[in-house]
Amino acid sequence: MSAVASRVVALSGGIGGAKLVLGLSRVMPPGDLVAIVNTADDFEHLGLAISPDLDTVMYTLAGLDDPQRGWGRREETWTFMSALAALGGESWFKLGDGDLATHIERTRRLRLGESLSTITADLCRALGIAVRVVPMSDDKVRTVIETDRGTLDFQDYFVRQRCAPMVREVIYAGAAMARAQSEALAALRDPALRAVVICPSNPLLSIEPMLAIRSLRDAVAGCAAPVIAVSPIIGGGAVKGPTAKMMAELGLPVTVTTVARRYGDLLDGYVLDHADAEEARTLDLPLRAARTLMVSLADREALAREVLAHADALADGDERKPA
Amino acid sequence: MSAVASRVVALSGGIGGAKLVLGLSRVMPPGDLVAIVNTADDFEHLGLAISPDLDTVMYTLAGLDDPQRGWGRREETWTFMSALAALGGESWFKLGDGDLATHIERTRRLRLGESLSTITADLCRALGIAVRVVPMSDDKVRTVIETDRGTLDFQDYFVRQRCAPMVREVIYAGAAMARAQSEALAALRDPALRAVVICPSNPLLSIEPMLAIRSLRDAVAGCAAPVIAVSPIIGGGAVKGPTAKMMAELGLPVTVTTVARRYGDLLDGYVLDHADAEEARTLDLPLRAARTLMVSLADREALAREVLAHADALADGDERKPA
Repeated sequence: MSAVASRVVALSGGIGGAKLVLGLSRVMPPGDLVAIVNTADDFEHLGLAISPDLDTVMYTLAGLDDPQRGWGRREETWTFMSALAALGGESWFKLGDGDLATHIERTRRLRLGESLSTITADLCRALGIAVRVVPMSDDKVRTVIETDRGTLDFQDYFVRQRCAPMVREVIYAGAAMARAQSEALAALRDPALRAVVICPSNPLLSIEPMLAIRSLRDAVAGCAAPVIAVSPIIGGGAVKGPTAKMMAELGLPVTVTTVARRYGDLLDGYVLDHADAEEARTLDLPLRAARTLMVSLADREALAREVLAHADALADGDERKPA
Repeated sequence: MSAVASRVVALSGGIGGAKLVLGLSRVMPPGDLVAIVNTADDFEHLGLAISPDLDTVMYTLAGLDDPQRGWGRREETWTFMSALAALGGESWFKLGDGDLATHIERTRRLRLGESLSTITADLCRALGIAVRVVPMSDDKVRTVIETDRGTLDFQDYFVRQRCAPMVREVIYAGAAMARAQSEALAALRDPALRAVVICPSNPLLSIEPMLAIRSLRDAVAGCAAPVIAVSPIIGGGAVKGPTAKMMAELGLPVTVTTVARRYGDLLDGYVLDHADAEEARTLDLPLRAARTLMVSLADREALAREVLAHADALADGDERKPA
């Protein structure tokens, strides 16, 4: 593929995905990067429209993320939460004072009938973010978890119940009817597309809700550029969050192989950690082993370079799927 | 009137009124005090239902008010406002982080169909307030200001334009159709009523919107207990806020006499500052001169005692309206 293939699309959930999106934005022109972000864990809380993954990506790209906590904003204050608790309000979902500005502004504009993608674009512009951050859909898709304690809304399962219930099934309510966001589809059809990167986010909670939208899945499957996934599993475990626990409860081996097989035919290449190279050897897919744990900013950039190099090699035909 | 007359009703706006309500609550059993509070300067901002006078009374009674600023909460933080400004949101109306908890919780419950009075009662209970704080109405009444710069919503005039426009008329939109809050009416009809206190709030912006609700005005006019106003004018000026400027622009002399005449037949007695005793001598009304400037907590309590003493004297027949 020629130098004209400059655009990159990343499919991202929250923390892990946002780290790689940040890395990509620093090793390529950020204006050529489109991040399609999961909105299936969006929810309404205290009357506010909250989009956790969009906000994590946005805060990370704006340098506003809190590196210790892993969610929310740095230099955050918590006066609102204390005052709300004193009033007897619901305090299981922590909303920082600065973070509230995002939710209140988004909610206000959604109520005026504006789309989530328009609002997201404006918030990103205000924060000086050059990457195009696009929600997977402006329609409502909601992850619902069937558990041994009944059917739970995602944030109820994830935050209030701290992933304690046993997962039996993960459902993306609304996905069948949802339309993919038009800019996301256009980016995937862009003749200048260099690569599609499936970020190392939770497959069940972040990536598969996006792929459950038929038109989005079809656009990934049909795109001309190499589709490269980065494994969220390192050394047979998840870096963070409930990925490993959920996979185990669903009877899925917690391996890089499982993740690649779930994405199946969509993938043209796979980037995984050195620790999992042996485990992955049975995969019928061009593999690239790298350091995938992203601790420092340099780690994020290095992994982004590996991913793009893998894509470029595949596009140039240097690497072929093994027979 | 006998010892059974223990209940006091106070009609209050924001700061000045709240100070006297606090004073009253400390010189009588607070559970016997009902504060009927103006809601005509309530408004919706950023999608949140904001009730400035109710909140000022509530925060003052809970000891959460900021004594320096005169509005909002003490030990407040402003992270939300900074973050909102960075997102390009509207920042002319300052909302503190702790204050937001009140607005978000109120808005959430109003959207569920609960009444402002129920929500207010619950918030007060959570904050340990023994005084019954009652909005004048659960219906929407909105102060609108006709000015030389056009028709302005109250907070636009008051906060955004800092009372700079010349006032031509003050309108209480919705007052004709609004029903007085039922507990407010019941308190005014209570056989154990000792006094009705019209607090030293802005007559045009805080007291008259309440009296513009026919059933509330009639209940004040018809109540068995003495109705005592406390003048917000001291020495021919207002302590704070736009009272004097507005009165002057409407062609009203800025005097204790003007205020008393506006309340007219409703009053059985009047408490005014020593500085205005000479000015008030033409009033056909039992007067009591006192120190009405409330700087310290002791001032608030002392003025409350004066007001109740004036009411009790009138009820006992010790003082009569001059022929």
